Amino acid sequence: MLENIDLSRKIEKEEYKAAMPGLELKLGVLQREAIERKIPVIIVFEGWDAAGKGTLINRLILNLDPRHFKVSSALKPTEEERLRPFLWRFWIKTPAKGKMAVFDRSWYHRVLGERVNKTVKKPEWLNAYKEINAFERQLADDGNVIVKFFLHISKKEQKKRFEELESSPSTAWRVTKEDWQHLQQYDEYAGAVEDMIAKTGSSQAPWTIVEAHDRRFATVKIFKTVIQALESRVQALKAGGEQTARVQVSDNNLNDVSTSILDRVDLSLSLTEEEYAAKLKKYQERIRELEHQVYMKRLPVVIVYSGWDAAGKGGNIKRLTQNMDPRGYEVIPIGAPNDLEKQHHYLWRFWKEIPKAGHIAIFDRSWYGRVMVERIEGFCTEAEWKRAYREINEFEEQLVNFGAVLVKLWLHIDKDEQLRRFQERQENPYKQWKITAEDWRNREKWDLYKIAVDEMLYRTSSPHAPWTIVEANFKYYARIKALKTVIAAIERRMGGT
Amino acid sequence: MLENIDLSRKIEKEEYKAAMPGLELKLGVLQREAIERKIPVIIVFEGWDAAGKGTLINRLILNLDPRHFKVSSALKPTEEERLRPFLWRFWIKTPAKGKMAVFDRSWYHRVLGERVNKTVKKPEWLNAYKEINAFERQLADDGNVIVKFFLHISKKEQKKRFEELESSPSTAWRVTKEDWQHLQQYDEYAGAVEDMIAKTGSSQAPWTIVEAHDRRFATVKIFKTVIQALESRVQALKAGGEQTARVQVSDNNLNDVSTSILDRVDLSLSLTEEEYAAKLKKYQERIRELEHQVYMKRLPVVIVYSGWDAAGKGGNIKRLTQNMDPRGYEVIPIGAPNDLEKQHHYLWRFWKEIPKAGHIAIFDRSWYGRVMVERIEGFCTEAEWKRAYREINEFEEQLVNFGAVLVKLWLHIDKDEQLRRFQERQENPYKQWKITAEDWRNREKWDLYKIAVDEMLYRTSSPHAPWTIVEANFKYYARIKALKTVIAAIERRMGGT
Repeated sequence: MLENIDLSRKIEKEEYKAAMPGLELKLGVLQREAIERKIPVIIVFEGWDAAGKGTLINRLILNLDPRHFKVSSALKPTEEERLRPFLWRFWIKTPAKGKMAVFDRSWYHRVLGERVNKTVKKPEWLNAYKEINAFERQLADDGNVIVKFFLHISKKEQKKRFEELESSPSTAWRVTKEDWQHLQQYDEYAGAVEDMIAKTGSSQAPWTIVEAHDRRFATVKIFKTVIQALESRVQALKAGGEQTARVQVSDNNLNDVSTSILDRVDLSLSLTEEEYAAKLKKYQERIRELEHQVYMKRLPVVIVYSGWDAAGKGGNIKRLTQNMDPRGYEVIPIGAPNDLEKQHHYLWRFWKEIPKAGHIAIFDRSWYGRVMVERIEGFCTEAEWKRAYREINEFEEQLVNFGAVLVKLWLHIDKDEQLRRFQERQENPYKQWKITAEDWRNREKWDLYKIAVDEMLYRTSSPHAPWTIVEANFKYYARIKALKTVIAAIERRMGGT
Repeated sequence: MLENIDLSRKIEKEEYKAAMPGLELKLGVLQREAIERKIPVIIVFEGWDAAGKGTLINRLILNLDPRHFKVSSALKPTEEERLRPFLWRFWIKTPAKGKMAVFDRSWYHRVLGERVNKTVKKPEWLNAYKEINAFERQLADDGNVIVKFFLHISKKEQKKRFEELESSPSTAWRVTKEDWQHLQQYDEYAGAVEDMIAKTGSSQAPWTIVEAHDRRFATVKIFKTVIQALESRVQALKAGGEQTARVQVSDNNLNDVSTSILDRVDLSLSLTEEEYAAKLKKYQERIRELEHQVYMKRLPVVIVYSGWDAAGKGGNIKRLTQNMDPRGYEVIPIGAPNDLEKQHHYLWRFWKEIPKAGHIAIFDRSWYGRVMVERIEGFCTEAEWKRAYREINEFEEQLVNFGAVLVKLWLHIDKDEQLRRFQERQENPYKQWKITAEDWRNREKWDLYKIAVDEMLYRTSSPHAPWTIVEANFKYYARIKALKTVIAAIERRMGGT
């Protein structure tokens, strides 16, 4: 496919000089429109070494308002980055609404350089296609305009450019041994590029191959492509189209979730105080040992606590962490998103909190808010929460693929027990702060929440990321069950490595 | 001094069991008060290896609401951290208002471990005392409650604890060769501790030495100290005291700044178009070469653009960066602080943007907003902007001590020229977005701004961080002068290394 690209295309100086001022003005106007209409924009530059990425990116950004874009270079991952799933460092750099993120190389590194140089194994880069497509689809569904460039030059041209750089003392250092090695691998690399373009091109995130022998031709093509992408989105919005309108979610209603999972939970389960004290001691000692092993073996651990208000999440987490080393774990409480978080895809703030390999992250509430409170309270559209089941499953699958132990706990109590606990809080001066008018309002919607929870448990439990329902009417029982569940999950993984 | 500490102090089990519930409740209540009253809290744990830092920190945080605190461990700096001044990684972790930051080891590492192990040179750790004191004073002045613990055990006790840990297979790995080496260095380390306590204890950020042989004694002392610190701040606020009232700034008024620096600027300086074109080309080529050298030599470069509205900062920056490699520089536009930034010390958001060594950060407006727009518009108190001159000087000195090239440019135009440019913007449909009602309002305060700018230039120009005034009535001249100034500053430093 690459060999059919006409690399002789060029633009003469006069034509270029005539065209650019108009394109520059247009791009400036469109950037301001995108800012006003809160469109997030992602521009990816991939391409051969010495194809001119740096110069062409600079040419583009000089016309943009620097308050609203950011350029990131994806070179070798840092230590911090290596300890997290490979998409982590790109997720956290996805643009807020109205902002533009320009990537000088990107997540495609995994299926190009890392693939060709065999620094990742084949199942990993094969899987990366899946993860990349999910990543781009999720962002496109959330309204991102995605433009991807591949700057193409021939092997002969690349060699010529390396030689030119080497011939001047002030640029010779820029050509490394690695570059010459890449030149040797040109054909292999070209195969990977073709594979990448075939597997990751989509109408939401199309590839544009840029014939990059002639700098002027490449510049004009890049400007025109970005302008066209922005223009068509702005036009669509002006015409009243919803950014996310194109996302069709089949209208699966609750009929699919034929039986209630929650109704089958045995809430009479309990423990005596002696049983509790003995087991608590034993499991707390065990979890501390495991915490150290997790660190030594660089295992990432993600524990998600969900449950009804007053189900005892806080006290439960406290018993889990009581004997742990604070250097090895972190409790991440999730409340309403702040302003900045609201400007991003809803998964963004969770990606930001993904623990380093070797650390334990305990989420007190989580991304499941999307299909519970946000669904019930109308904080997102129906299309958004319906889409979320798939997005959450993909997100969790990526964590597990990366090697994470993932434990998801639903602390379940019944409606009467919740009432009893609310009243107790209200009567105790030291607990009053724990109960708010909102808690009472949520309680009125118990039945709606129950439907949402049942659907959530049904749609997001999978062999690699199962839900554990913790019977929590009796706190002793719930605490021990949570501890046991976490320990078993870590031990299972320890055994496996 | 350490040898006078009575390490035999202990608390019996019954007494402990009787005392703790009350302390725990009290701490919980005080944390909620601190959240409500928006008090930022910093708690530092330093101490001997095996003194029990991890366990004691965990004991403390289990009683806190996890939505409002964060524990950080300061182990060896990461690559990202090594490329920035040593206080950077602590600055970015300072708490927002109402939040608590717990540091498991801290910035004191520099004057303890790093000093004793000679991984920093003597002038560096001597200088660190100065930087640490400035850091803590700036935070205390901004309302932070700072509590610092040193957990003390004897050499004999440390040896005993290492041996105990080694005797069990599940903990033996925790004692490293390094730990035994530290034991050998106990006395040398003790000297550093005493020196540290003497040099960095202050009423704003006092040290508490914790006798840590007895776990119960240490726990109670830590709880009581934190409670006392929070209580006295809460009491002071209830009594109507201003958090920052105690900061006395001598009332230096403009009389000290006897002459106007701005009045002496020759705004008739200009260049012909040919001179401009030739010099632009030459200097743009040179800056690109220097950009690569900056990267190779891992030099951090900070360029600050300030100036009147419409003085041409944007166009000037564009000419500076036109030929540069976008991987090596970043333009950091500074506008009004966002909500999160407002919750922190005003320097926090600039610390966050400090470039990695080897990169060039170009600030389009900067921390000087504090003594200009924030002063004039009343966005901060008089005490705050008066304090800011010293804080800014300290901040910049730290950058320069770290090896940064610091270039500060004031783009100067006169009032008539500004009017001409405002009108031109208003008439040109492609430039209209650049001019707002706020610009006109600012213009009305020209004379007030002029006083502030003169005082700023006077108080924050120093040999290590001088201001350069760029005569900017003629854009060609201003662009070339800015380029030349930046080039000369980098070349000077290059020559020096």
